[in-house]
Amino acid sequence: MRKTIIGVMGPGASTTEELKKTAFELGRLIAKKGWVLLNGGRDVGVMDAVSRGAQSENGLTIGILPVDHNDYTSDGVDVAILTDVGQARNNINVLSAHVVIACGLGAGTASEIALALKAKKHVILLGNTEQTVLFYKSIYSERINAAKSPVDAIELAEKILKGVKR
Amino acid sequence: MRKTIIGVMGPGASTTEELKKTAFELGRLIAKKGWVLLNGGRDVGVMDAVSRGAQSENGLTIGILPVDHNDYTSDGVDVAILTDVGQARNNINVLSAHVVIACGLGAGTASEIALALKAKKHVILLGNTEQTVLFYKSIYSERINAAKSPVDAIELAEKILKGVKR
Amino acid sequence: MRKTIIGVMGPGASTTEELKKTAFELGRLIAKKGWVLLNGGRDVGVMDAVSRGAQSENGLTIGILPVDHNDYTSDGVDVAILTDVGQARNNINVLSAHVVIACGLGAGTASEIALALKAKKHVILLGNTEQTVLFYKSIYSERINAAKSPVDAIELAEKILKGVKR
Amino acid sequence: MRKTIIGVMGPGASTTEELKKTAFELGRLIAKKGWVLLNGGRDVGVMDAVSRGAQSENGLTIGILPVDHNDYTSDGVDVAILTDVGQARNNINVLSAHVVIACGLGAGTASEIALALKAKKHVILLGNTEQTVLFYKSIYSERINAAKSPVDAIELAEKILKGVKR
Repeated sequence: MRKTIIGVMGPGASTTEELKKTAFELGRLIAKKGWVLLNGGRDVGVMDAVSRGAQSENGLTIGILPVDHNDYTSDGVDVAILTDVGQARNNINVLSAHVVIACGLGAGTASEIALALKAKKHVILLGNTEQTVLFYKSIYSERINAAKSPVDAIELAEKILKGVKR
Repeated sequence: MRKTIIGVMGPGASTTEELKKTAFELGRLIAKKGWVLLNGGRDVGVMDAVSRGAQSENGLTIGILPVDHNDYTSDGVDVAILTDVGQARNNINVLSAHVVIACGLGAGTASEIALALKAKKHVILLGNTEQTVLFYKSIYSERINAAKSPVDAIELAEKILKGVKR
Repeated sequence: MRKTIIGVMGPGASTTEELKKTAFELGRLIAKKGWVLLNGGRDVGVMDAVSRGAQSENGLTIGILPVDHNDYTSDGVDVAILTDVGQARNNINVLSAHVVIACGLGAGTASEIALALKAKKHVILLGNTEQTVLFYKSIYSERINAAKSPVDAIELAEKILKGVKR
Repeated sequence: MRKTIIGVMGPGASTTEELKKTAFELGRLIAKKGWVLLNGGRDVGVMDAVSRGAQSENGLTIGILPVDHNDYTSDGVDVAILTDVGQARNNINVLSAHVVIACGLGAGTASEIALALKAKKHVILLGNTEQTVLFYKSIYSERINAAKSPVDAIELAEKILKGVKR
């Protein structure tokens, strides 16, 4: 049966410890909902933490890798999709996700937020500054949502999923 | 835990009934092994039949779609990866699979065989003519394997997996 | 001989008449410098205007199209590269350009700015609001440049090109 | 004005000296016709030779590179398109070309022949064995053409171009 996919995007090596904790908790809650977690698949930052969180609750995790090998794939990834298309894989990430959650902000994440909006997806911003939220809301107010916590993000995702074609 | 992925490639609308039966049986056997099935995800031909076969044994099925929507996705696909990169997704198919099985031959399948060989993957030809087997063997003898039946293909896949980095 | 490529990114159908004039003038100046113009190739908005501007000065124009046909390709495009990878082509646009100029801002353009920064490219913002400039400068101050006019953008591009590997 | 693009595909490091001479002559003739040459862009084998041939007659050469840098780009390439999509760029090569000429045969070339046929392009085989010609003709007889020499390939290309939408 077709599964519901939640995409979680976020920075890699530059991620703070606090944001990693948020990402881990977010992954845990996604798995508890029975949703599939999809992310960029690497073994650093938000990608790694959210995968491990989902795995800790026996959730299914899909990693969409930019390269053609698993040398830097997170141990939290169950199914590794090796695209070898570099950052072009960011578009695959957002197209495949029914809801996109941006947890923090790096250049890659910023491209994913923009590509998600281009694809008419709803985006939930978590762990982002007021300035970031205001910037994106000023341009695409109706599809940008700000969450205060992982629990809040899950509630927003549930509401959005009711109106999304899967 | 990282899962073993078997990629099954094959023609779409032009597939014969006999080849569909072969593909269904192949999908069934892949699922019984506990392997993840990966394919092109569409609702026709080998793609549809192999997905339904795997699903009939509760296997996990991943469809790598060429488009950005699920209008033509097989009901046998559990996780739909929407690439929107057209036939460029054929390279993602073969890179993500630990073993590639070509079940029949269309132009898309022929591209996947060639891309798999380029990526140094082992390819199992199933349901293909003597001429096709000889052509590919004449060029890349050491990584081309011919299977007589789905059971035979599974046995070949098991042998190949022993030597493959996952 | 390897040519210098200037990538100009900008919105499509939503482009204002004023921004089209700016884009046309920018294309004209790029061609007069002997640089190759690269853009998204479509027959609307900034893409169309900048291509026509470059063409009016006999510049060479390359369009990187998201589709596999020329039905919506600008007449200002000399060489149409048909990628059929959808918005994933945005990454090809920025990687191929030695300098990226964002002329206005749509969701696609925002993804290109982010992908350019991810690829360590310098970005010149032209015809953008103070808020947009401040947002990007707050995150990647050293590689974001704001231009007041097409002439200003060309001067900035010349300075940047001196330090860029081609 | 929209230019006519001839795509020449062929092996890299494994290319024989004879095939390189054929590719150089082919590039020369393409340039003399006023056509744009498009190829994989690298500095080895058929790619390098055909680019240098076209350049020797002041033709315009476009290289579609699999990587995000010019470290291995042929000096014969005027415009380097850096895709960073690995072998997925093979599909861009064939989609962008109005006629595809396969000069020799490697795994990458075989994928390009198949992708070209999938995209309903005409393919001219040059410097290929009887077995290769027969294999492809047995499957897609109406769009496979065999050329005996570069001059012969150019004549075939001219005929094909008369029926192709540009």
